[in-house]
Amino acid sequence: MERRQYLQIPGPTNVPDRILRSLSKPLINHRGPEFELLIEQCIAGLKKVFRTQNDILIFPSSGSGALESTIVNLLSPGDTIVAVSQGLFSERMAAIGEKFGIHVVRINKEWGEAVQIDEIKNLLMQDTEKKIRAVCLPQNETTSAITNDIEGVAKMMKESQHPALLVVDAISSLACLPLEMDGWGIDVVITASQKGLMLPPGLGIVALNDRAWKLVEQSTSPKWYWDYKAVQEKMKGGQFPYTPATTLLFGLKEALDILEEEGIEKIWERHGLMGKAVRKAVHAMGLTLFAEEEYASDTVTSIGMPDGIQYKELAGLLNKDYGVVIGGGLQQLQGKIFRIGHLGAVDQLDVYAVMGAVEMALYRLGYHVELGTAAKAVAKTFLKE
Amino acid sequence: MERRQYLQIPGPTNVPDRILRSLSKPLINHRGPEFELLIEQCIAGLKKVFRTQNDILIFPSSGSGALESTIVNLLSPGDTIVAVSQGLFSERMAAIGEKFGIHVVRINKEWGEAVQIDEIKNLLMQDTEKKIRAVCLPQNETTSAITNDIEGVAKMMKESQHPALLVVDAISSLACLPLEMDGWGIDVVITASQKGLMLPPGLGIVALNDRAWKLVEQSTSPKWYWDYKAVQEKMKGGQFPYTPATTLLFGLKEALDILEEEGIEKIWERHGLMGKAVRKAVHAMGLTLFAEEEYASDTVTSIGMPDGIQYKELAGLLNKDYGVVIGGGLQQLQGKIFRIGHLGAVDQLDVYAVMGAVEMALYRLGYHVELGTAAKAVAKTFLKE
Repeated sequence: MERRQYLQIPGPTNVPDRILRSLSKPLINHRGPEFELLIEQCIAGLKKVFRTQNDILIFPSSGSGALESTIVNLLSPGDTIVAVSQGLFSERMAAIGEKFGIHVVRINKEWGEAVQIDEIKNLLMQDTEKKIRAVCLPQNETTSAITNDIEGVAKMMKESQHPALLVVDAISSLACLPLEMDGWGIDVVITASQKGLMLPPGLGIVALNDRAWKLVEQSTSPKWYWDYKAVQEKMKGGQFPYTPATTLLFGLKEALDILEEEGIEKIWERHGLMGKAVRKAVHAMGLTLFAEEEYASDTVTSIGMPDGIQYKELAGLLNKDYGVVIGGGLQQLQGKIFRIGHLGAVDQLDVYAVMGAVEMALYRLGYHVELGTAAKAVAKTFLKE
Repeated sequence: MERRQYLQIPGPTNVPDRILRSLSKPLINHRGPEFELLIEQCIAGLKKVFRTQNDILIFPSSGSGALESTIVNLLSPGDTIVAVSQGLFSERMAAIGEKFGIHVVRINKEWGEAVQIDEIKNLLMQDTEKKIRAVCLPQNETTSAITNDIEGVAKMMKESQHPALLVVDAISSLACLPLEMDGWGIDVVITASQKGLMLPPGLGIVALNDRAWKLVEQSTSPKWYWDYKAVQEKMKGGQFPYTPATTLLFGLKEALDILEEEGIEKIWERHGLMGKAVRKAVHAMGLTLFAEEEYASDTVTSIGMPDGIQYKELAGLLNKDYGVVIGGGLQQLQGKIFRIGHLGAVDQLDVYAVMGAVEMALYRLGYHVELGTAAKAVAKTFLKE
């Protein structure tokens, strides 16, 4: 049957019908007044989500493209950065840096662990020559499902008086987890369309402040497509240096309207509640969280595979019989964990149904659990009992 | 009123309803079997359109991004290329090359002129040390609305036995104008989603042969997002190194089905007929073509602004009263020409209506023309009288 689909990977997320419909509007001229207004509205809406008055640039690209854009715009070959490496996606930032001749000082964390503020602080304090140009880390690492304390890192960096920029990959956290670009003093925030913004993939988005623009002025890395100055120059007039992804921008406008209607703080609260409900159900079913509990993400949960059950069997059953698509472990975590995304357009009954499906599937695969356990834990969380 | 829209710029083109609807399908997991099948079907369909058995890579990007990808994958800093510069978009290829440290030998043409095969041949013959790595030119330059003789250039290059690759920007010509990648022996063909493929913008597509892959192996230009080897490696397994633009790939599959139903040779014929009808109407109305008639494009027509009529008035009237969006002159051609795109999903009545609207708008702005002139010329072309 054509059943309701639950795309519960940590992004792309389920796209609300309102947004899906907005994607099929007839195309408009990307050099006309109608388009100019669309961009103006998108930027105004994004500023509310990023909590910033800074410039925001949009690229027809994936989120990884937006990460690459920060490397080639802020830095020059030979520059030094600190990059926290704690999973596939935070490691990507370090790897891109090295491809472009950047000297990357990694803070290597076990997958499942968050970065400690002192680890960054120590590197900055040792750097008496102030060679470190930027500290790069994700707010949320989906590989292991942990969240870093960005507010704390920002506070420490301000106090350290080290000139390094704070560059935050908020691809899987923006419009999900609390983030205050201006309030906390983050210099660069990177995101993409297919996570908290609830859009299909295809837009990379970068916000940057005046301190970051100063580095842009000095950068000698070769670039054309990602050139912030060229994009900024055109975007001021509501245009782009090359053809933008028009239909995704229609979708972005719709998504921003939806976010505005709920209110960004309510959205953060909702994600907090959903994350808690998922974790309560995990514990109630006797399963184990893979990530440190204290830093467990509110956008995705990683769960250890119970003994004797294969990931492929679980994922196959969930997909085939319940329309639920979950994520597996990546690289060294393959077969060892499963991951449930709960970001974007996710509300109470979604979590209720998905955790119920996980319980039923595990039960059918021989896992010992009393039916109804997940539902009870989820309901109790929502009813605050 | 909510009237039918005619987006007659030289791309993005009007998107057929079938494709628009396919864009609003619910998202799927980009690492699952359903997605793998989608990619397999897209590549099989693209090969028929490119007329090639070579590898085809897809990027979440604009067409300009795909141009940049060829520069950083085929070349290394210090390499020499020949680039035909005959408008904004062919000049872009040269400009991107220079940003990445490539020595660009330009063949500068007046805007409105096609390149002569001998101009390229002479440069290759003078290059006794075989330093030229590639000859880059567009099949179709939309700035001035001319078409270069790619078949002739390919034949000459084969005969010259010079090892330079032939790199063709077919962004505004693929699936419109005849092009035989394998038959003519083109090494690299670049396109984008929003022209002959009738999709919204957001996909850059590159096809390359074994000769091109050999240069890729040698390239030392820094790259991560555009890295052909990394993309190729993942695409073999129906995946991408980063999140692909899933909904546009749904659209691509639908577009390729539509193209397959008509047949690529019929599509080339239809564009030939549409281009001819537009030019006949232009002449009949006493207007002048801006491009050399012999090389006038069958995807877009550039027309000199009649004395005493402002481009903005013409474009405004067409948009407001007829729902027709046309293109203006770019840079030094601003105000001097107007451009009508007739590529992608364009058939007889579209051309009939659009040229009728142009006639009525010009008439209202004081241009002397007998009403019905455009329609008569268009109809006679279609009825082959």
